[in-house]
Amino acid sequence: MKSRITFIGLGNMGIGMAQNLINAGYKINVYNRTAAKTQELTGDFEQFQTVIEATEDADIIITMLSDDDALKEVATSKTGFLQIMKKDAIHIGMSTISPETSRELYELHHEKETHYVTAPVFGRPNAAATAKLFICTSGNKLIKEKIKPILEVLSQGVYDFGEEPGAANVVKLAGNFMIMASMETMAEAFTLAEKQGLDREKVAEFFGETVFNAPIYKNYGSLIAKKQYKPVGFKAKLGFKDARLATKMALDVKMPAPLLSLVYNRLMSALANGKGDNDWVEGISGGVSNDAGI
Amino acid sequence: MKSRITFIGLGNMGIGMAQNLINAGYKINVYNRTAAKTQELTGDFEQFQTVIEATEDADIIITMLSDDDALKEVATSKTGFLQIMKKDAIHIGMSTISPETSRELYELHHEKETHYVTAPVFGRPNAAATAKLFICTSGNKLIKEKIKPILEVLSQGVYDFGEEPGAANVVKLAGNFMIMASMETMAEAFTLAEKQGLDREKVAEFFGETVFNAPIYKNYGSLIAKKQYKPVGFKAKLGFKDARLATKMALDVKMPAPLLSLVYNRLMSALANGKGDNDWVEGISGGVSNDAGI
Repeated sequence: MKSRITFIGLGNMGIGMAQNLINAGYKINVYNRTAAKTQELTGDFEQFQTVIEATEDADIIITMLSDDDALKEVATSKTGFLQIMKKDAIHIGMSTISPETSRELYELHHEKETHYVTAPVFGRPNAAATAKLFICTSGNKLIKEKIKPILEVLSQGVYDFGEEPGAANVVKLAGNFMIMASMETMAEAFTLAEKQGLDREKVAEFFGETVFNAPIYKNYGSLIAKKQYKPVGFKAKLGFKDARLATKMALDVKMPAPLLSLVYNRLMSALANGKGDNDWVEGISGGVSNDAGI
Repeated sequence: MKSRITFIGLGNMGIGMAQNLINAGYKINVYNRTAAKTQELTGDFEQFQTVIEATEDADIIITMLSDDDALKEVATSKTGFLQIMKKDAIHIGMSTISPETSRELYELHHEKETHYVTAPVFGRPNAAATAKLFICTSGNKLIKEKIKPILEVLSQGVYDFGEEPGAANVVKLAGNFMIMASMETMAEAFTLAEKQGLDREKVAEFFGETVFNAPIYKNYGSLIAKKQYKPVGFKAKLGFKDARLATKMALDVKMPAPLLSLVYNRLMSALANGKGDNDWVEGISGGVSNDAGI
């Protein structure tokens, strides 16, 4: 019999992931702070009004929330699920959060005889909807084996980084830094080409087809070249949150990272200019354009 | 009958390119400042002791030199070929130089009733040897058509950027900036992961297989992850030259480019520390490691 899964957090990413689990035949409970969001789901699932109700019979709880605080609220607060989880139930933390929070949750679950596995994802909402995510994992080996079939339903690949619970978060935050750094790289290169009289879209196409033919450069490259910042795929304020978490990680281990500081400040400037809810591509590429007066 | 080509500049890149032209059946004259370099060539070619002798009967002259000054010496100096080129002969400038130098050469050739086409390349020496380069072109349309078969022998793709002679140089310098920026990106991400207790090679492999699966990230990513800086593929001082030319381009058009400034200073520091002849990967990745005390 397939495990009963509770899915918490039906945002742009979570909605597609939950749908894929329903389609794969899992029994799904869902909880979202904004209940109306679940109207986008189709098929067999049960919706609950509180975290406690949604999770009390769950074998697996998946959290896909926007930040550390949102996760702590549903997991460890007075109204959180940690107090009522079944013995040996598993919490899969898929949000982009700090490694410290994963380490804390791992300990707290351990005390309660439940389990915590870290499993953040790479991919935009369309990758979530089409099960083309990449998932990084860290945590207890046996528990990771148990949940592997679930992660495989959601992704095109699962990559493990060992037993230290925070490790997958380090990879995820390092990766989001790399994506922001790539955006800064492309924005500076294409803007320089534009100011030198070239067609920035043609320049972007060239690099996307040749030495930089990776999804990040093709997809973000096209958006940056066209200065196409809508629809919003990922908000600048969430990008800033990740730059902040990565900066905190760097600070914790005494790691000077000037490029990380650059993108951190680039996105802080987007927030300072009231653009926190715009796409992070605009936060970075728009900042480079503004600096250059175009 | 195939054109007689003179190839000037048999460095790490030029040697493989000249060999591919010989293999394709072209009649090749070669000239290199250090004559001994030609000993690596096999097959049918003629070697000359002076630029003038090497170029006087050439239909096509290809230059593949380390910088603007080296190019000007063989082309426009008293001992250069511009004064003796046959009418309608074509000079293909494949070095990584400033757009200004291409614009000047284009004019000078025009006055002499000869032709200049800009055609810088992307690829390391092994790509030159295996004809896997990517070539960017700019200049007169008819002349570009004429030389296309030659460029196809050397490359896996030729990408045109219009008639303005400097345009292909802008793309090449923007691309080399993007490569340096990618190295800084990876070096910071992998060093952060390492200081957080992760295996940096595993992190590099993950990104190279997933969201950053482009040659630049795979190849340089592996070198940076392993801190493997030998053999020297491209010297830090040549990378610095390109960062300097890109910075000059940015200055000319009033384009603030903080990431470009960052890699410019990173490589200047490598030169200041006596590492100009080491690989540019060491210049950047070694700088990040040093900053982080590892």
